Amino acid sequence: ELGGFVDDIRKIEPDYIRSFLWEAKLLPSTWIVIRIDGCHFHRFSTLHEFVKPNDERALNLMNSCAVGLLEEFQDLVFAYGVSDEYSFIMKKDSQLYQRQASDIVTAVVSLFTSLYVTKWRDFFPHKELKYPPSFDGRAVCYPSSEILTDYLAWRQVDCHINNQYNTCFWELVKSGKSKIEAQNILKGTQTPEKNELLKQFGISDYNTLPVMFRQGSSVFWDKEDITPEHENGTCNGTYRKKVVVEHCNIIEPDFWNSHPSILNLKP
Amino acid sequence: ELGGFVDDIRKIEPDYIRSFLWEAKLLPSTWIVIRIDGCHFHRFSTLHEFVKPNDERALNLMNSCAVGLLEEFQDLVFAYGVSDEYSFIMKKDSQLYQRQASDIVTAVVSLFTSLYVTKWRDFFPHKELKYPPSFDGRAVCYPSSEILTDYLAWRQVDCHINNQYNTCFWELVKSGKSKIEAQNILKGTQTPEKNELLKQFGISDYNTLPVMFRQGSSVFWDKEDITPEHENGTCNGTYRKKVVVEHCNIIEPDFWNSHPSILNLKP
Amino acid sequence: ELGGFVDDIRKIEPDYIRSFLWEAKLLPSTWIVIRIDGCHFHRFSTLHEFVKPNDERALNLMNSCAVGLLEEFQDLVFAYGVSDEYSFIMKKDSQLYQRQASDIVTAVVSLFTSLYVTKWRDFFPHKELKYPPSFDGRAVCYPSSEILTDYLAWRQVDCHINNQYNTCFWELVKSGKSKIEAQNILKGTQTPEKNELLKQFGISDYNTLPVMFRQGSSVFWDKEDITPEHENGTCNGTYRKKVVVEHCNIIEPDFWNSHPSILNLKP
Amino acid sequence: ELGGFVDDIRKIEPDYIRSFLWEAKLLPSTWIVIRIDGCHFHRFSTLHEFVKPNDERALNLMNSCAVGLLEEFQDLVFAYGVSDEYSFIMKKDSQLYQRQASDIVTAVVSLFTSLYVTKWRDFFPHKELKYPPSFDGRAVCYPSSEILTDYLAWRQVDCHINNQYNTCFWELVKSGKSKIEAQNILKGTQTPEKNELLKQFGISDYNTLPVMFRQGSSVFWDKEDITPEHENGTCNGTYRKKVVVEHCNIIEPDFWNSHPSILNLKP
Repeated sequence: ELGGFVDDIRKIEPDYIRSFLWEAKLLPSTWIVIRIDGCHFHRFSTLHEFVKPNDERALNLMNSCAVGLLEEFQDLVFAYGVSDEYSFIMKKDSQLYQRQASDIVTAVVSLFTSLYVTKWRDFFPHKELKYPPSFDGRAVCYPSSEILTDYLAWRQVDCHINNQYNTCFWELVKSGKSKIEAQNILKGTQTPEKNELLKQFGISDYNTLPVMFRQGSSVFWDKEDITPEHENGTCNGTYRKKVVVEHCNIIEPDFWNSHPSILNLKP
Repeated sequence: ELGGFVDDIRKIEPDYIRSFLWEAKLLPSTWIVIRIDGCHFHRFSTLHEFVKPNDERALNLMNSCAVGLLEEFQDLVFAYGVSDEYSFIMKKDSQLYQRQASDIVTAVVSLFTSLYVTKWRDFFPHKELKYPPSFDGRAVCYPSSEILTDYLAWRQVDCHINNQYNTCFWELVKSGKSKIEAQNILKGTQTPEKNELLKQFGISDYNTLPVMFRQGSSVFWDKEDITPEHENGTCNGTYRKKVVVEHCNIIEPDFWNSHPSILNLKP
Repeated sequence: ELGGFVDDIRKIEPDYIRSFLWEAKLLPSTWIVIRIDGCHFHRFSTLHEFVKPNDERALNLMNSCAVGLLEEFQDLVFAYGVSDEYSFIMKKDSQLYQRQASDIVTAVVSLFTSLYVTKWRDFFPHKELKYPPSFDGRAVCYPSSEILTDYLAWRQVDCHINNQYNTCFWELVKSGKSKIEAQNILKGTQTPEKNELLKQFGISDYNTLPVMFRQGSSVFWDKEDITPEHENGTCNGTYRKKVVVEHCNIIEPDFWNSHPSILNLKP
Repeated sequence: ELGGFVDDIRKIEPDYIRSFLWEAKLLPSTWIVIRIDGCHFHRFSTLHEFVKPNDERALNLMNSCAVGLLEEFQDLVFAYGVSDEYSFIMKKDSQLYQRQASDIVTAVVSLFTSLYVTKWRDFFPHKELKYPPSFDGRAVCYPSSEILTDYLAWRQVDCHINNQYNTCFWELVKSGKSKIEAQNILKGTQTPEKNELLKQFGISDYNTLPVMFRQGSSVFWDKEDITPEHENGTCNGTYRKKVVVEHCNIIEPDFWNSHPSILNLKP
């Protein structure tokens, strides 16, 4: 029945229709941060009974997806994750998708989502996905490595503040307070009062909590020593590059100074 | 070890870091088309042994994901799909994500991807996913329903042209030609010559091919008659709305005239 | 001394430098409104002793510049001005500067400024320009003629509200009140109270004020009868098109219905 | 007659109409270059009988306008001009107009135009403006001072190339060749051939041509020694800042190194 319509093709003028396409190129020579966030993950984590305030399996699943992203996109040089949020850093001179914002951000979000669903069973072997999880994302440009590391420091500070609050909140809830009561108790408290409160629940030192919960996860390419152990004990220094997940302090300059290749910093 | 950094929070100035965030609001009162495409689906379809030129299971999987999108996002009023591409139409006055382009396009792409992986087994029960599929996407605004329907017509014309070409191409390949030979034979041919060629392969009439292959898939909310059959044969006209998949001609105005509620056209 | 540098030309890579250029195309098939405003015209009008609340010469100068714009840019179909603000309407399908926003808005602002300075002496023959006046501008797209006329109605409503307020304000000031006192007296007053106040100053009917002050100025191409008067009194209906300045009500549909060619409205 | 319409104000919904306004913020912490170009200045320069290939008065008028811009906008730190083109550099952290692109570029273009018309008589005392000149403009962001100085070097290289070509072209024309003949003679010639040609016209050394023609004009704030000459010959080093116009080589790093305050370069 469609046979006749080919005669009408010219009426449609594809060039005119394509002219509405709107391009947003990201400024050249700037660091691109693609930040993704779980859509409605409050509901998702409740329905899938995530451990509160931090579910180790869920965080490891997020980290595993981030590793997959760095392995797939060569221009991603670093990623930082906390809770249901992940920030991917694309190198300054990347020409991926000619720096078209939509293409970059959708390709990253889509692959992350795909990995999340695919890998779910590896991390939650006894739990079925009750509905398909999804993520939203956006791309932001940072013109210098200083501002970029400030961005990452800001995310890690946020991780710390949220974790401190959430640890207190859930200890209160587990002790029998309602969520409203817990909120009211915490309103306006500062770090010393929160530490005091944690002591009452047997957490004598906040810093003994797992470092992944306190400092989030950093994902990057690192050298791995694969030197086979020689009989005579010599070492020929053979390395291969590998994506690693670490839970380091990225606020202080030490991390960046000891990994200068990540941001291609000059010594 | 991170304990001391909270003193440094103020140095980071979140407002400054947030000021780099870049917003692209889609023009109000225009139709938003979110078009998604499979990333490297040539490779994906080969590796997963899709039937050529059209794999019914793969198309039905795409359609099923599109149905899921319309069920999730109330503002999506229509979708048109062909091959590994799908266009979703969001109504003119949608305020979803305050019309922020990144948020809209990533949420759509991500849920589509999530559904694709989740539903894979329903359509390919005996085939494992060999690697995580992904999609890219973009949003385009169309200021009138006339230009919007021209856009959709353009996609359907493309479906027809590609299907005609691909059907000939794969018949040639199945008959023993190499892909290069098949390409050379088809170079510059018009519809009559392609029809002639199809006849040699036993396809006497192109229009007898499955309509989904020739016309793509249209997805929209439609009324479904759920009147229970009365004993006395009367009918009380009870309906419920349901997302349907049809393979209709959306180039001619007939479809839009007989479904005026989709684009909210005035009679 | 520069002789040697030509050898270095290739190092600079013009393509790289050009790649930072950022384009914002205005959505096709939408009405473009370029609105310009005087920069710091409060100061400019005081220093050049404009009559308050409305200076007829200054408004006529603005109108004369707007006429010049319509005569220069064929795609401008209408303009509406009030005080130190002017809105220019560019037709939906204009391809001027390939709809590049910066080019369009700067070309309009620049020519307006140039005309303003050039024509100043015609309207203020006995007053020197004390410093160079300037204007800023922006382009906004409106996807339908309904929303476009709503935009223009909004500007005319603003004209009315401001004029009513300013007329009261300056009558109070002329009567000996300070500007602060005048502001306080007017705070929170509605139209009936303002009309009452005007009566005290001898303005028995607001509508007797000059229509240009109350309704602003509309600029458009209109037909002018240039039929030469025949000796025998017959008329052969010869017209030429001419840019006119009128002070009509553009809120009601009457104006647009009686000038359908401006927005190319279908009867 | 407009008296009744105030009742209708609410129907217009200013917030809805304002929602179409489209903002393009320039990326923070990047150098903003606003480049302006004369509109149709080929025609303008011919009609006003500019001396070819370079009219000293016209260039000085351009320079004088650029000085006015730097005096008005504190955030403009440098400008470079050649022919009917001028590039203005706004400092990285400028918050002028909250970095809104349209506002910045129109304010710069408009004031430049206003100055050009106002100052015309100072530079062309015996020539009337035959029609109002205008300029278009655009804003581009550069993320580092290296790329910014590359941009400026590119403009100066262009100045040199164009001046060399134009000098030859107009010598040929003055010698009696037609413009077409002159073009054909110059087609494909390199610097040595052009220098040879200039020698035939008595220009033994290109570098003896006025430096403003060869190197364009740089405009910036500089210290001026205003030490009054003491009777005893001592000097107390009193300076004031002043906008200067120089014709220096800005391709080599020397200029930037000896004026580190312009781009706020660290020593």
